[in-house]
Amino acid sequence: VTVSELGERALLARIQAKLNATGRPPASLVVGIGDDAAVVASTRNAHTVITTDAQIEGVHFERKFSTPTNIGYRALTVNLSDLAAMGAVPRWALLSLAMRDDFPVADVEELVAGIAEGAAKYNTFVIGGNLTRITGPLIVDMTVMGEVKPRRALTRSGGRPGDALYVSGTVGGAAAGLEMLRAAPEGQGVSLGVPRTDGEHCIARYLRPEPRVRLGIAIAHARAARAAMDSSDGLADAAHQIADASGCGVEIDAAALPIEPAARAWWDAAGKDAVLQAMSGGDDYELVFAVPRGWSGRLRHVQSRVAEPSVTRIGTLTKDRGSRVLLRDGRRVAIPRGFEHF
Amino acid sequence: VTVSELGERALLARIQAKLNATGRPPASLVVGIGDDAAVVASTRNAHTVITTDAQIEGVHFERKFSTPTNIGYRALTVNLSDLAAMGAVPRWALLSLAMRDDFPVADVEELVAGIAEGAAKYNTFVIGGNLTRITGPLIVDMTVMGEVKPRRALTRSGGRPGDALYVSGTVGGAAAGLEMLRAAPEGQGVSLGVPRTDGEHCIARYLRPEPRVRLGIAIAHARAARAAMDSSDGLADAAHQIADASGCGVEIDAAALPIEPAARAWWDAAGKDAVLQAMSGGDDYELVFAVPRGWSGRLRHVQSRVAEPSVTRIGTLTKDRGSRVLLRDGRRVAIPRGFEHF
Repeated sequence: VTVSELGERALLARIQAKLNATGRPPASLVVGIGDDAAVVASTRNAHTVITTDAQIEGVHFERKFSTPTNIGYRALTVNLSDLAAMGAVPRWALLSLAMRDDFPVADVEELVAGIAEGAAKYNTFVIGGNLTRITGPLIVDMTVMGEVKPRRALTRSGGRPGDALYVSGTVGGAAAGLEMLRAAPEGQGVSLGVPRTDGEHCIARYLRPEPRVRLGIAIAHARAARAAMDSSDGLADAAHQIADASGCGVEIDAAALPIEPAARAWWDAAGKDAVLQAMSGGDDYELVFAVPRGWSGRLRHVQSRVAEPSVTRIGTLTKDRGSRVLLRDGRRVAIPRGFEHF
Repeated sequence: VTVSELGERALLARIQAKLNATGRPPASLVVGIGDDAAVVASTRNAHTVITTDAQIEGVHFERKFSTPTNIGYRALTVNLSDLAAMGAVPRWALLSLAMRDDFPVADVEELVAGIAEGAAKYNTFVIGGNLTRITGPLIVDMTVMGEVKPRRALTRSGGRPGDALYVSGTVGGAAAGLEMLRAAPEGQGVSLGVPRTDGEHCIARYLRPEPRVRLGIAIAHARAARAAMDSSDGLADAAHQIADASGCGVEIDAAALPIEPAARAWWDAAGKDAVLQAMSGGDDYELVFAVPRGWSGRLRHVQSRVAEPSVTRIGTLTKDRGSRVLLRDGRRVAIPRGFEHF
């Protein structure tokens, strides 16, 4: 059955049923799905944090690489990653879905189930959205809202010379996973140079990003960093952006980078430079953040409460604004440019 | 110059310049465009109202009928209409823009200028968004946030039997305007049966919807209605939706409908039933609302403060849930079904 055969109202009812499976709405939801707009009660002494990010077929995902469930999950979690990078607690989400007349209703239900899964995991409630026809690619555009205490939001611009630069988890896994998928969409490719399970881990990093929500909240709560962003467009991009916004230079030590082992093995086998690939590759959705001298005790406190993912010191913010140095085998080279969408 | 020739960062700078032309950001904006997410301070004792609506090339607009400025203006104002229908004061907007590599930068600038024009007119500030490539139609997906006092939001479900049903302004103008555009994209068509200026008025209703923001706010403030929605999908659709959500029937008097005179003339000349066309046609973005007996003094007070658009009583909510009656020349017929997007 296609969406146009089912009709808009019945489709909306199916979507609501999937979303309601995530549990009862919070008391602060005043008006949910089904009216002209949603209404929520604001939390006293909290700022509202809001972001939007679209997943577009053929640009951000391929139907042949990903299931509808994963597409939905990813559409939500990439947005939650932006909230995590601000140190915000997720609250609400809106779903704007554009699909062809002949899109199968079963796929819509799976896609919404993927969103519902991510929403349940990260305490987010879907309160509204929009359904529309398109004569073109599938589009899953989500907006998420969260909350942060005044003066606790982690911006990109708060870094100062001398701050240590950290990254959470590992880098390069998602970019290698995408290469593995492209090399062999049916999954055999993951055995090229890396054990199957490690390859599957990289692929999962690409297909189902896990936003660092607990870590971001804990860092903001403990004031353990004064600048942060997520590595959605790669570690190199994040380092450039934080340095640009903070009016600093940056130095990264290649030897310190927590490159995902399976990704390193994959690039080594392909004869590619694993350091450059891992720094340039996007989609890891780790947190990159600047920690002033003397705040490292706060960061240890954060890690005692949020053990996973671990965090790694990879470099330092420096005084010279234009400077973007990668220390490598005793040489100083330029940090590669980040990804541009255009 | 195309967007891919200019590059993402430079494009973003051009967009910000157009948006900043609308004036200084309100003091309650804590973090605006350029970070992982936007941060705003909430107003004490106000609920947050949020909605999203996408404009898609080939579905909601045609490049040959509309300028980039009008597409941008419309993308914002159709969202503001949803806020108006809740009685909310507009505050913030996010812009999610998907365009082809070869989209002209000049068109992006015009489109954003259209958004900025609407934002300035309706006191809305653009605080963030997302830019992405697409291999397909142009998509302008906007999310808007507003505020309403607790217990003042106008929902669809608040109507009760006996309430008078009103509509603001006139109906049918936008639908007739779209037909005029389709009949003669170059504009000569507007002289078919209607004076040129009247035709242009209908076309403008379609291309540049004006949300009933002041009226919606005034109605909510004065508690002059207890159910409302906008007529984005037509008057018939709004009547059905309010009756459905409120658990009522509805009776509309065809003779009372404030059909746009130029639209009536257009349909009369085409041998079409102007009443049915005006009720089924979408895109008017008027407010449809239910006023209990005894509250009409409050509504007169609202009209003394917001004279334009005028409001017209067109019918009554009734007890019989399933009943959807159009009174016409002494006969009782069914109200036509509303528009479904699928």
